[in-house]
Amino acid sequence: MPGNTTGTIFTVTTFGESHGEAIGVIVDGAPALIPWDEAFIQSEMDRRRPGSTTLGTARNEGDKIKTLSGVYEGKTTGTSIAMLIENTNQHSHDYDQIAHTFRPGHADYTFTAKYGIRDPRGGGRSSGRESAARVAAGAVAKLMLREKGITITAGTVALGGIKAEYTSWNPPFSNPLLCPDEKAALLMATEIEKARSEMDSIGGIIEVHATGIPAGLGDPVFGKLDARLAAASLSIGGCKGFEMGDGFRATELKGSENNDQMYLQNGKPAFFTNHAGGVLGGISNGNEIVFRLAMKPTPSISQMQKSITDEGKEVPILIKGRHDPSIVPRAIVVAEAMCAITIADCYLLWSAYHG
Amino acid sequence: MPGNTTGTIFTVTTFGESHGEAIGVIVDGAPALIPWDEAFIQSEMDRRRPGSTTLGTARNEGDKIKTLSGVYEGKTTGTSIAMLIENTNQHSHDYDQIAHTFRPGHADYTFTAKYGIRDPRGGGRSSGRESAARVAAGAVAKLMLREKGITITAGTVALGGIKAEYTSWNPPFSNPLLCPDEKAALLMATEIEKARSEMDSIGGIIEVHATGIPAGLGDPVFGKLDARLAAASLSIGGCKGFEMGDGFRATELKGSENNDQMYLQNGKPAFFTNHAGGVLGGISNGNEIVFRLAMKPTPSISQMQKSITDEGKEVPILIKGRHDPSIVPRAIVVAEAMCAITIADCYLLWSAYHG
Amino acid sequence: MPGNTTGTIFTVTTFGESHGEAIGVIVDGAPALIPWDEAFIQSEMDRRRPGSTTLGTARNEGDKIKTLSGVYEGKTTGTSIAMLIENTNQHSHDYDQIAHTFRPGHADYTFTAKYGIRDPRGGGRSSGRESAARVAAGAVAKLMLREKGITITAGTVALGGIKAEYTSWNPPFSNPLLCPDEKAALLMATEIEKARSEMDSIGGIIEVHATGIPAGLGDPVFGKLDARLAAASLSIGGCKGFEMGDGFRATELKGSENNDQMYLQNGKPAFFTNHAGGVLGGISNGNEIVFRLAMKPTPSISQMQKSITDEGKEVPILIKGRHDPSIVPRAIVVAEAMCAITIADCYLLWSAYHG
Amino acid sequence: MPGNTTGTIFTVTTFGESHGEAIGVIVDGAPALIPWDEAFIQSEMDRRRPGSTTLGTARNEGDKIKTLSGVYEGKTTGTSIAMLIENTNQHSHDYDQIAHTFRPGHADYTFTAKYGIRDPRGGGRSSGRESAARVAAGAVAKLMLREKGITITAGTVALGGIKAEYTSWNPPFSNPLLCPDEKAALLMATEIEKARSEMDSIGGIIEVHATGIPAGLGDPVFGKLDARLAAASLSIGGCKGFEMGDGFRATELKGSENNDQMYLQNGKPAFFTNHAGGVLGGISNGNEIVFRLAMKPTPSISQMQKSITDEGKEVPILIKGRHDPSIVPRAIVVAEAMCAITIADCYLLWSAYHG
Repeated sequence: MPGNTTGTIFTVTTFGESHGEAIGVIVDGAPALIPWDEAFIQSEMDRRRPGSTTLGTARNEGDKIKTLSGVYEGKTTGTSIAMLIENTNQHSHDYDQIAHTFRPGHADYTFTAKYGIRDPRGGGRSSGRESAARVAAGAVAKLMLREKGITITAGTVALGGIKAEYTSWNPPFSNPLLCPDEKAALLMATEIEKARSEMDSIGGIIEVHATGIPAGLGDPVFGKLDARLAAASLSIGGCKGFEMGDGFRATELKGSENNDQMYLQNGKPAFFTNHAGGVLGGISNGNEIVFRLAMKPTPSISQMQKSITDEGKEVPILIKGRHDPSIVPRAIVVAEAMCAITIADCYLLWSAYHG
Repeated sequence: MPGNTTGTIFTVTTFGESHGEAIGVIVDGAPALIPWDEAFIQSEMDRRRPGSTTLGTARNEGDKIKTLSGVYEGKTTGTSIAMLIENTNQHSHDYDQIAHTFRPGHADYTFTAKYGIRDPRGGGRSSGRESAARVAAGAVAKLMLREKGITITAGTVALGGIKAEYTSWNPPFSNPLLCPDEKAALLMATEIEKARSEMDSIGGIIEVHATGIPAGLGDPVFGKLDARLAAASLSIGGCKGFEMGDGFRATELKGSENNDQMYLQNGKPAFFTNHAGGVLGGISNGNEIVFRLAMKPTPSISQMQKSITDEGKEVPILIKGRHDPSIVPRAIVVAEAMCAITIADCYLLWSAYHG
Repeated sequence: MPGNTTGTIFTVTTFGESHGEAIGVIVDGAPALIPWDEAFIQSEMDRRRPGSTTLGTARNEGDKIKTLSGVYEGKTTGTSIAMLIENTNQHSHDYDQIAHTFRPGHADYTFTAKYGIRDPRGGGRSSGRESAARVAAGAVAKLMLREKGITITAGTVALGGIKAEYTSWNPPFSNPLLCPDEKAALLMATEIEKARSEMDSIGGIIEVHATGIPAGLGDPVFGKLDARLAAASLSIGGCKGFEMGDGFRATELKGSENNDQMYLQNGKPAFFTNHAGGVLGGISNGNEIVFRLAMKPTPSISQMQKSITDEGKEVPILIKGRHDPSIVPRAIVVAEAMCAITIADCYLLWSAYHG
Repeated sequence: MPGNTTGTIFTVTTFGESHGEAIGVIVDGAPALIPWDEAFIQSEMDRRRPGSTTLGTARNEGDKIKTLSGVYEGKTTGTSIAMLIENTNQHSHDYDQIAHTFRPGHADYTFTAKYGIRDPRGGGRSSGRESAARVAAGAVAKLMLREKGITITAGTVALGGIKAEYTSWNPPFSNPLLCPDEKAALLMATEIEKARSEMDSIGGIIEVHATGIPAGLGDPVFGKLDARLAAASLSIGGCKGFEMGDGFRATELKGSENNDQMYLQNGKPAFFTNHAGGVLGGISNGNEIVFRLAMKPTPSISQMQKSITDEGKEVPILIKGRHDPSIVPRAIVVAEAMCAITIADCYLLWSAYHG
């Protein structure tokens, strides 16, 4: 697969450039007879939209979902579902200046090296806009998963060096960063504004929780649930790290501290702790699935930087236009979407043997 | 795929239980006419073998590679290469005690939940022994990559809370942990012995470097090189986290600090820094590929732990036998192998368009 | 994959119901920098369109291609190419009568059995209309292949029992059936009109030729070029058989008659005959690729037939509306498309090792 | 995939050269807890073995199956199953003469063109011996399918121009060709002996039946059940054609003759006829699955033929050694195996949604 498809039996294939005609997605393998809740899908789209929070950019992309196939009389038919999002607010002229210069931290150089051509308008295919198609697909996965009693939530647990302190995870969170620590959320918002005023940007950490997962999802060896979630997470633009459960912190624990010992809760297998994040040997253990994504600071900053052109000249570059000082707030729903897509696929694979 | 195969055109399929007849691997898609350097493959196997360092277990598994197909007159033929490793030192009786009790931190419970059956002898399919097949496949990938000028090395950069300090990466490293900081290496070795004497275990961090990678490997969106490396890494037993380049540390940097600005070096595109770890937008940028794996402390510890049986009784469990106080030393070559397998696949996919 | 995607590195994913909003396709893995010849793509679409020949139905579907992504300044960018065809001429009311009755020879019953739901408007997803997306993708494959010197042509070699007699294949053929035997073409046209007047339908055989194929395409064992072409062909609605080269006739030959013996032509390997149809051991031998598809008579006939409803009642059914007396004329370009898609994929896979 | 793996969730990966150390197969995705009937698997192997019938070659390959993994205490564990067949009777010297000359009708030339190297001993990877691994995998698929009430049988329906006449299919058939027409079977056996005495070979047609298939297997568009069966069949060495149900004969029928009309049998959907061979729109309709494979005459004949060497010289070639005058008798169990593998995969994919 050349990159634009993911999944084994719940598959997602996306297309579209930032400033092209439209972006969109084909979801294949969604079960038939799922009630088609387009309002829910649109509400997920709206969570990702620029301008959806006061912390993001001032652009307003619209992002109205148009369902083209796979749904009949309000239900999925089991055939491929196509969803289209037209690009209505393109401002290509904002980007003319950087058509031949590689923006630092962006994929301009690597796309040129790989393909010998790139669509420079807004980053083309490498734009964060591509994630809108993931959110649409993720919403379909969530529609399927909620019928199985599975819920996926995510939020910000670190931003610009501010770390949330929390001992439990009780969504929905009311602050725009969906941070489980309201106090930290305020500090984080301040950091965003500070970065904006300094024409700089900040990164952060997103935590994802999935509840209601039966024991047994995921496959041994190369098909581990956590390996799939890692790939799904790192496939998000700007994600530079992934950890399952305690992750990197587990490297400083002893085995006696890190092992999740077992007991019986109402006669059913249970764990005293969840250092593992709900996965053992790559297979879900019935505990809550917990993982974290490291998101880098947005590369688009309005400061002078050093770069080169595609004709081999060294040039300074100053990126104009309004950009998110942090992609974290808008990436939360994308992280949830990739988790949902991954779990939907694993759930169906598991059902092949356990239905 | 039900988990035991990975790759798109350079594919690896493994089989085998810890105490079964044999384990092995089929490598498909390796180019024809690669000189078959079985001594090199065996030397890679020996790096993973228990007892290969003074820091590991006292078991001696042997692990002689037997090539069954795909090689003729000292060269690969382009057809599927099968390699077999017979299990010679099985001691099944050591494991009888835990045949019906789930070892904390192991996959015993999840395999039982998934399959309704498990081979308890030495962990069966979920044993770390499975990684021997990965090392054999990784050695084939390395044979291919060295013809392209690509080198992969790895080492320990943190263990039991001790962190290596280093500003450059100059393998080969002479200490058994392949740590770039000789002083830290001594402290780490002490931590391992301490954990052994305390019947406990410790985790650590492995860093992997790949040099000689042309710009352009990896695919956009879901097929990103870092997403593939993340999946490859998390597929290793005991790996709980992955970070590309600066990874989680990048979440505390500003965009102006984290962006790798560009210049021309002898007329060729170059970067002042490598915070990104050699990947932009999921595609290699010609810089060194750098990533890290978080390895949890070995779950097998000789302390009393709480668990349950597969018949639903709460029982204490004490795991006998000799176990590595840390899997990090032996996992280094496995991390290299998974990196090599992933890059071999991406290299061939890239060649389809750039050969 | 749940059916709507095909290919390994040149992949095609389609969507759309006969009377839904639109149908379309995502082509992923097409090389960058292919000149985008939309006029050619549209001309291929027009070949499939109902009403494109005097022998087809009187409906006029339009089928204007709209390219949504993957093309910039007249060239492919290497990213996923989406093409959309809006459904403009829907006449859903024609199909209300059969919403709950299974049309004999159609997929109405099997879709209902599989999914518990079907879109009955015009056959929904199982409609022949789905093939328009294949033709669009096939046109992209042809754009790629013509840069490699590869040409694909097809025509009718049998229809309604009339068999073409021909000893060479010299397209383009001027008759609407693209039959290499002009005399037979006239008789075939008469058979179509006869079937139409009898409210019946007829089947036929399509032959496909691909020239300019280098020796070496296709993979051994399960990935044979002819196995892929067979799957591609049988995936076309109404195709019930496939034969490579002499195919079923080879079963009546002796080995001494059927073997294609070799000689040197201008110093290059050549074959005295081409019974094999250009493939040996699943790998192209440099000869012309030749295969045939058996197309069944259109199941939609305006005669009373026996059937049942989705509520379990036996009912007679009379299918109204205008239907092609034979799908063969319009299926020719679809057969070419599937051949082109398959060879494009095999060509790129081959290039990974031979570029 | 580079050719040696097939399947989506029930996957089969094979390796091995005719005269290498061993051949073998990894079956991944077989459900856990299937009783491991090694005697049955061996009996299937014995059906394919040369010398298994009086009509085949005089060689005796042995073909003892050795199970290396995936089975514990007499049951499958759900993990990858490896089976090994050692090559015991190699006679490499018989093949020295043709090490550098391409045998007509064989893959010698195409392997050399593709890989630049080939293992000439007995045809290496392109030898019919490769099919032994398919039979082993097919036997595992049959073990799984018999628990679902699915039975697969095959037999010879044409050989050397002799056609079986039969109106029903009532296996087991007692003649060595498994022909449903005992009279024809005698004539066919005579044809084989005649071909042998003439140092020539003959081809034939194999018919496969699968009963007990629920309606709903297979996927629309590219994943059609018949498309998969076609690929599975054409992947068998020597298979040059495939037809589903009436296949090529359906091209001479009218729609009114070819449509399988429906009625209710004890309240359940049923078909008056089975021209379609049990598939509509690529999805099983509950009827018996019926398809046919065209097998070419064995290319190995002991007559002088014209060929060239890998050094570009024209030479005559006379293939020594004992060869089957027809591969049909031994290919029957291979055809069943490929059918079983394909249906096992489709059955599990269907179970993901219907379990």
